[in-house]
Amino acid sequence: MKTTKKFILTEQEMPTRWYNIIADMPNKPLPPLHPGTREPIKPEDLAALFPMGLIKQEASTERYIDIPGEVLDLYRSYRPSPLFRASALEKAIGTNCRIYYKYEGGSYAGSHKANTAIAQAYYNKLEGVKKMTTETGAGQWGTALSFACRHFGIELEVFMVRISYEQKPYRKIMMNTYDATVVPSPSELTESGRKILAEDPASPGSLGIAISEAVERAAADAEVKYSLGSVLNHVLLHQTIIGEEALLQMNKAGDYPDIVVGCFGGGSNFSGISFPFIRENLLNGNKTRAIAIEPASCPKLTRGKYMYDFGDTVGLTPLLAMYTLGHNFVPAKIHAGGLRYHGAGVLVSQLLKDGLMEARSKLQKDCFRNGVLFARSEGILPAPESTYAITGAIDEARKCDEAGIPQTILFNLSGHGHLDLSAYDKYFSEELEDHALTDKEIEESIAMIR
Amino acid sequence: MKTTKKFILTEQEMPTRWYNIIADMPNKPLPPLHPGTREPIKPEDLAALFPMGLIKQEASTERYIDIPGEVLDLYRSYRPSPLFRASALEKAIGTNCRIYYKYEGGSYAGSHKANTAIAQAYYNKLEGVKKMTTETGAGQWGTALSFACRHFGIELEVFMVRISYEQKPYRKIMMNTYDATVVPSPSELTESGRKILAEDPASPGSLGIAISEAVERAAADAEVKYSLGSVLNHVLLHQTIIGEEALLQMNKAGDYPDIVVGCFGGGSNFSGISFPFIRENLLNGNKTRAIAIEPASCPKLTRGKYMYDFGDTVGLTPLLAMYTLGHNFVPAKIHAGGLRYHGAGVLVSQLLKDGLMEARSKLQKDCFRNGVLFARSEGILPAPESTYAITGAIDEARKCDEAGIPQTILFNLSGHGHLDLSAYDKYFSEELEDHALTDKEIEESIAMIR
Repeated sequence: MKTTKKFILTEQEMPTRWYNIIADMPNKPLPPLHPGTREPIKPEDLAALFPMGLIKQEASTERYIDIPGEVLDLYRSYRPSPLFRASALEKAIGTNCRIYYKYEGGSYAGSHKANTAIAQAYYNKLEGVKKMTTETGAGQWGTALSFACRHFGIELEVFMVRISYEQKPYRKIMMNTYDATVVPSPSELTESGRKILAEDPASPGSLGIAISEAVERAAADAEVKYSLGSVLNHVLLHQTIIGEEALLQMNKAGDYPDIVVGCFGGGSNFSGISFPFIRENLLNGNKTRAIAIEPASCPKLTRGKYMYDFGDTVGLTPLLAMYTLGHNFVPAKIHAGGLRYHGAGVLVSQLLKDGLMEARSKLQKDCFRNGVLFARSEGILPAPESTYAITGAIDEARKCDEAGIPQTILFNLSGHGHLDLSAYDKYFSEELEDHALTDKEIEESIAMIR
Repeated sequence: MKTTKKFILTEQEMPTRWYNIIADMPNKPLPPLHPGTREPIKPEDLAALFPMGLIKQEASTERYIDIPGEVLDLYRSYRPSPLFRASALEKAIGTNCRIYYKYEGGSYAGSHKANTAIAQAYYNKLEGVKKMTTETGAGQWGTALSFACRHFGIELEVFMVRISYEQKPYRKIMMNTYDATVVPSPSELTESGRKILAEDPASPGSLGIAISEAVERAAADAEVKYSLGSVLNHVLLHQTIIGEEALLQMNKAGDYPDIVVGCFGGGSNFSGISFPFIRENLLNGNKTRAIAIEPASCPKLTRGKYMYDFGDTVGLTPLLAMYTLGHNFVPAKIHAGGLRYHGAGVLVSQLLKDGLMEARSKLQKDCFRNGVLFARSEGILPAPESTYAITGAIDEARKCDEAGIPQTILFNLSGHGHLDLSAYDKYFSEELEDHALTDKEIEESIAMIR
């Protein structure tokens, strides 16, 4: 009885290039606009926030970008990551489909966020940057960047959404352990923070506010750069190593996915697993369906509007052409903190608009139920975010079984849930709530976009 | 600049035999005694607690025991585990030694405990066992066994030391997620528990008490078997896959350890990494020093007495000839919960007595300081237990540097610390205390052995 089968790559087989999907998109995404002039932004406009190495990647149209040796070296501390056949899960749900998952929880950070954290810290170091700022919600991103910055000798200041800072202290401690400074946001350190605190001294904060604070800090100081953990083109680029590895591993399994699934917050892990397979569709006529799974309480892909919007609450970032719920949208406090973001970024939004990928929304109680089912079958306790991908994969398998056409499904298990056990406790205690949004709520939020 | 180098094995290279060190010990350990008659125990005396498959392993004198296919299948979900050259740590401490570490934190349980949990659940399943009991302190062992039992269709009841149950709820939730029942110990479910609660209704519990409860439950019900996560011969046997893999990986690194280090609680991870290297000493004349690192607050190897003692507080287990602090010894509440055990088991005790291994004790604040240094260098946040191994390795490297003779040091990083961040918080807040024992305290505790 073989219950789980693992497909591994040797270090020599690890891909050494990231894949840039812009090169192959039939319709290129609309350009980002300057928040002041509303004209297409120029590379030099971004130089206050990012090093030129990353700005070039953001605008690159090259299909492949070589991964630098120092980045590969640190990737090797946890990559290539394993790909598993989910035999025990298949048995538990009684499907005739073949389900596989790529597991990114083995990194020092416990999630896929390390893939871009390492790259971003590296390019900053290359240009002599000594200090960076970023924001974090539940803390996966902040954790990943904390060690990457420490490794490359860069000081890091993390604006952490205040309610997470207070309710989930462990991620903060982990960032401190890696030597980062963690500031609850909104804070008195920035004009953005002070303005919000003046209006509401008890503000619980939000990802949008924390981005405003981190961006403001970097914009105000020529010595400081800013870093974002999702949404932007260069971030999604760095995550494509996931899908490039998965392509090689599916080949070792003698199989190929009909469906690829990832959970969706700002797009980084979904893009990582799916873009290389979308490339195979575009260039080689393959027919893999790429499906993003978002929370029903934050449904920008399935119910948002495609338009120019800010990436942050205050309106300091460039305007991005994307599916959005409005930059003032405050998602319900679901436990998949990494999925609570109002916009989808330009690459994924254009792909969705062009029918090159699909999207579904799921309720958190269903996702936790499937997360427990997965843990009891496969052993790995999934991060709350990853339970959305599990749920998407199970739902697709059931649809295939109903149609009598078993298919091959691959999903990305973006992280483990060892730091999220309080959320599982709430699930077992039946304290979790599902949040369905009315059309009116969504319309009102979108109408607030300036 | 190569910063970290990883040495991996393919699945095909994974060892398929456990190593039984009894076969090669120049002096065999003294036999366990029946707690009632104090005569050498017979296999059938143990049949109430363990399946025959494990009893046979406990008494086996065969050098190698084949790992069953179903156990190998589940091992493959996280094995072979990686071995790393700790280049960044070497640089951080400025040593001329070469330091390597084997990393066992990639398992579903986050530690090496999965290696024996899977094997024990398998042998129980093979003999039709439907329910098992065990104890757990901080919860690593209980977590590992919970999923293993679930996988093999066995119900599990875990007696968890009450103070951990109350202060560290996350491990309990994780065990629940894997479908185990977790009972705070002392409990009203057993005579042992009721007796202790009658004396002290607010008893915080101890590992010794929890063992008494779990053993009593299994002894009282022919349908129920008991499982222990360390100390016993068959448990140490199962962990030898760690060292067998490390031998192959050191060979791939073109190196061989002069010193092997593991932290020490009941002996399972230390034995796992070191026994195969001790075999090479005994059979092939190699000269690797094997060093166990225990907490200064629980120093059975360095300050305990070699004598027959019970494995539990109440005195229900067989008597074992071992270094012990006395079965009533209650170690200070250091955060390395897995190292808080009064005895050392018969194999390690005999090896230490015969000078075939060494032992050192360390203070927890030093260990946490080195744990933080390790995290900031190598990225992986270590479990509090593993910080003792890190400290042992660093201390040996410094001694080598002082002597001007750089050596090769290998240590076992037994688990990650993602569930132990509150302990790191206390370290940073300077709330940790070091506990040195007086000779009188140790003498009094040993004098209480019946």
